[in-house]
Amino acid sequence: MKNKSRQVLLKPDLSYTVTGKIWIECGQEKFFGPGPVDLLQKIEETGSISKAAKEMGMSYKKAWELINQLNAMSGKPFVITKSGGEQGGGSIITEEAKSLIAYYTKLRTRFFSFLEKETRAMMLYFG
Amino acid sequence: MKNKSRQVLLKPDLSYTVTGKIWIECGQEKFFGPGPVDLLQKIEETGSISKAAKEMGMSYKKAWELINQLNAMSGKPFVITKSGGEQGGGSIITEEAKSLIAYYTKLRTRFFSFLEKETRAMMLYFG
Repeated sequence: MKNKSRQVLLKPDLSYTVTGKIWIECGQEKFFGPGPVDLLQKIEETGSISKAAKEMGMSYKKAWELINQLNAMSGKPFVITKSGGEQGGGSIITEEAKSLIAYYTKLRTRFFSFLEKETRAMMLYFG
Repeated sequence: MKNKSRQVLLKPDLSYTVTGKIWIECGQEKFFGPGPVDLLQKIEETGSISKAAKEMGMSYKKAWELINQLNAMSGKPFVITKSGGEQGGGSIITEEAKSLIAYYTKLRTRFFSFLEKETRAMMLYFG
């Protein structure tokens, strides 16, 4: 069904998109989204929390807070610091972290499909 | 397909939800979302931009900026201030504003359905 004001509501020379953000909450708090994905992937790449934090322009303290929050809201730790500490053995991300990253990545792909479908529908409706 | 780490990744005593935000952009800028909907509906209720702004804890200047931005990105004005100005005739929202509010409200309903479906799928996968 076309809308009677479709000819005038959106300007034909401008582009309109339906857009948004998606994340996972635990209780009412943010649990998992683009930020944690980015941090965990950088820890995986560099093998180091401090290097990952630095690449993200985040303090080491802030990175640890994020990791502790993730670990607290999950049944298993997402990051393991090997013996010798950060300076010695470095840090790795767990299979659980990789699993949730993969899940979130697919979720976001489905969300982007939803947004694209809605953008097309909106342009048909108003365009 | 169930995931091998489903028993441990999410804590059984906590509740997890897929959540998010959705809005319409024009070019790369925010155009329409919960903020404009709220302001426009309050203008419709009160017949006054200043009363609507006050109810939202927003300055009159900020409310006008938002309205001017909406009007600039749309083919037709969203708010019309009647003769005599704000003090005299008051303000009304246009049919185009009502049409976009209705469209966005339905879009958000579809988005909430998507989020609910994804939350159920996630709990089946990991729960």
